[in-house]
Amino acid sequence: MINISMIKTKLHHHREQFPALANKTYFNYGGQGPMPKRAMDAITQAEAHIQHLGPFGNEAYTWLTQQKQAIKEAIASEFHVPSATITLTEDVTVGCNIAMWGIDWQPGDHILLSDCEHPGVIATAQEIGRRYAVKVTTCPLMTTLNEGDPATVIAKHLHPQTRLVILSHVFWNTGQVLHLDKIVEICGNNNSLVLVDAAQSAGLLPLNLSELKADFYAFTGHKWLCGPAGIGGLYVRPEVRESLQPTFIGLRGIVVDHRSQPVSWQPDGRRYEVSTSAYSLYVGFKEAIAVHQQWGTSQERYEQICSNSEYLWRKLAALPNIKCLRTSPPESGIVSFQLTEQQPQASLKLVEFLESQKIFTRTIADPDCIRATVHYLTLESEIDQLIEEIQRFSQN
Amino acid sequence: MINISMIKTKLHHHREQFPALANKTYFNYGGQGPMPKRAMDAITQAEAHIQHLGPFGNEAYTWLTQQKQAIKEAIASEFHVPSATITLTEDVTVGCNIAMWGIDWQPGDHILLSDCEHPGVIATAQEIGRRYAVKVTTCPLMTTLNEGDPATVIAKHLHPQTRLVILSHVFWNTGQVLHLDKIVEICGNNNSLVLVDAAQSAGLLPLNLSELKADFYAFTGHKWLCGPAGIGGLYVRPEVRESLQPTFIGLRGIVVDHRSQPVSWQPDGRRYEVSTSAYSLYVGFKEAIAVHQQWGTSQERYEQICSNSEYLWRKLAALPNIKCLRTSPPESGIVSFQLTEQQPQASLKLVEFLESQKIFTRTIADPDCIRATVHYLTLESEIDQLIEEIQRFSQN
Repeated sequence: MINISMIKTKLHHHREQFPALANKTYFNYGGQGPMPKRAMDAITQAEAHIQHLGPFGNEAYTWLTQQKQAIKEAIASEFHVPSATITLTEDVTVGCNIAMWGIDWQPGDHILLSDCEHPGVIATAQEIGRRYAVKVTTCPLMTTLNEGDPATVIAKHLHPQTRLVILSHVFWNTGQVLHLDKIVEICGNNNSLVLVDAAQSAGLLPLNLSELKADFYAFTGHKWLCGPAGIGGLYVRPEVRESLQPTFIGLRGIVVDHRSQPVSWQPDGRRYEVSTSAYSLYVGFKEAIAVHQQWGTSQERYEQICSNSEYLWRKLAALPNIKCLRTSPPESGIVSFQLTEQQPQASLKLVEFLESQKIFTRTIADPDCIRATVHYLTLESEIDQLIEEIQRFSQN
Repeated sequence: MINISMIKTKLHHHREQFPALANKTYFNYGGQGPMPKRAMDAITQAEAHIQHLGPFGNEAYTWLTQQKQAIKEAIASEFHVPSATITLTEDVTVGCNIAMWGIDWQPGDHILLSDCEHPGVIATAQEIGRRYAVKVTTCPLMTTLNEGDPATVIAKHLHPQTRLVILSHVFWNTGQVLHLDKIVEICGNNNSLVLVDAAQSAGLLPLNLSELKADFYAFTGHKWLCGPAGIGGLYVRPEVRESLQPTFIGLRGIVVDHRSQPVSWQPDGRRYEVSTSAYSLYVGFKEAIAVHQQWGTSQERYEQICSNSEYLWRKLAALPNIKCLRTSPPESGIVSFQLTEQQPQASLKLVEFLESQKIFTRTIADPDCIRATVHYLTLESEIDQLIEEIQRFSQN
């Protein structure tokens, strides 16, 4: 008992670093994570420091170069990869676009997506399809949430022409976790590249991308990693780097000669970076990662997330008018559920009611449901409160 | 006399808003502008406000939507265009890439660049050339700095296949200002689209893009407009919007149906925006623009810039060992000059010596020169100090 109480006290203390958690009950980690105060202060201080040094000059340039390297190393330490494999981007979608547009598309090539991908990625695939006469199809993985094997479904949908398979590691709508090892192997045997949309997995799952061997892993800092909005990245497996061409190109990605003429790409992940970014965010993101690592390993954080999502899932499943999409405890921090007695726009009304009570969730369009996400930061008492308010809403 | 003294006092007071100007003598506005404290504070406050509201929820979303619109209106007010023509990007290079990759390239098409374009844009043109069998050539405008007519040179280099002409409004190396009206007309008569790299013109020249009729105008907030690094944009002429396809695509650019499936592009400049950005920067950039507008109109600021650059140019031209690239007073805030008695790496050594004296300039590789840029914020006393230190360097 004392041990559990001590852990709770420690968590309460840890949570005090996140201003966003002070005035609300938060279940939108999958939308955007709360930033630790330390990260926010670091951004402010970095902006001031840049102005102090320059903003433009040799000393400022040296400092910024160090910060770029430092955030890549922090990211690399979370993903267990060399920092040279990391490209910094504005967000996860840009990371996906770099991978998707960098392939040497030929007419008749095939892109396979799951039916749970994000609309931005779907629209990009469609545009590539239109421009290069590439076929784009989806395979039905949504129905494998509770039964069946995604790897088997994917294997059935691979063609000899399948150049790229696009999959979310954790589905943003249902919270399903794909067990990618086997899928990556199957795709590799078909000579299909694998792009993983890690919007909902980076900072949620413990990751070892060197072992995973997916070709491209696009992530964002501002969701489960609780960094600032406006920084994300792309891991490119070193073995495929030379075959992935840069598309949006700028000074950061190229090597120039003595007359400032471009002569080659940067040898590492920088080749896909474009130009000036909000460098102060790099410093803030590094602090956010440090805050998590001080709390525990990514494995420990993941276990706490699953403990929290199971607690929420069990409480929801016990409510008479609620149906969880999962029939067993979730493997991620995403808990999606439906109201069984569907009134028009019932999900939206519940989410609005909850936000009026300072409880933050969101609706999902397909499947029509409500999504509550729990982090390692989530308190049992917050979950109890959510359950209570859902009951109150249903009684009205 | 009283009047001039009052203006000087007013400028000293205005400059106090820029922390970067407090501890150095700054001539790198063309590299990055100093941010006003008000803009820096606005970024910090916006980050805190987002955490207070959400960060993710309906109220936060509403607020962010308002900020996106507000910064577009502020930009539009500087450029004299409707706000719907503006796309927000991370930087000017991304803006150029959006325009360059969005054209329906056909084998045999031709891209014409000036010989004073930025390496990132050159590399993008080369990659488009490689992928789509498009011919990329340059026309010699560097030699028109002091004599000759750029419009005539460009006209000679246009082919029937020239789909796109890429020109900087103000050359980053020599500071030359292109008089675009005639050039845009000549290119239009050839059915060639015109992309203007406005890295050195937005915030320097008074602009009316509606009158200018260039098809694409890519700019950044962090140079002459003194906004934060990490925000720029692209103006797309409404008449060509439907023919310019989005390339990097995300949720911000698309319209989705009731099942979150993409169905069309956003009707305005949003269609080229991708996904999550550092929204707090939008608020900071808006403040930076407001600070300039409070000082004077863009015409008044430009006149002050020219007055300052003429003062610097005359002082430099009077030095025995200095040769200004321009043989008449500059039309921009960029003053590029060379040391006449060239020792190896003399330019670099001078720039390093100056930075050791807290005077910030930079080297340019082609033509080999030193670039000092003056804003309306520059003091005559700063210019005098630069001249003194150049003299001191030359005497050693």
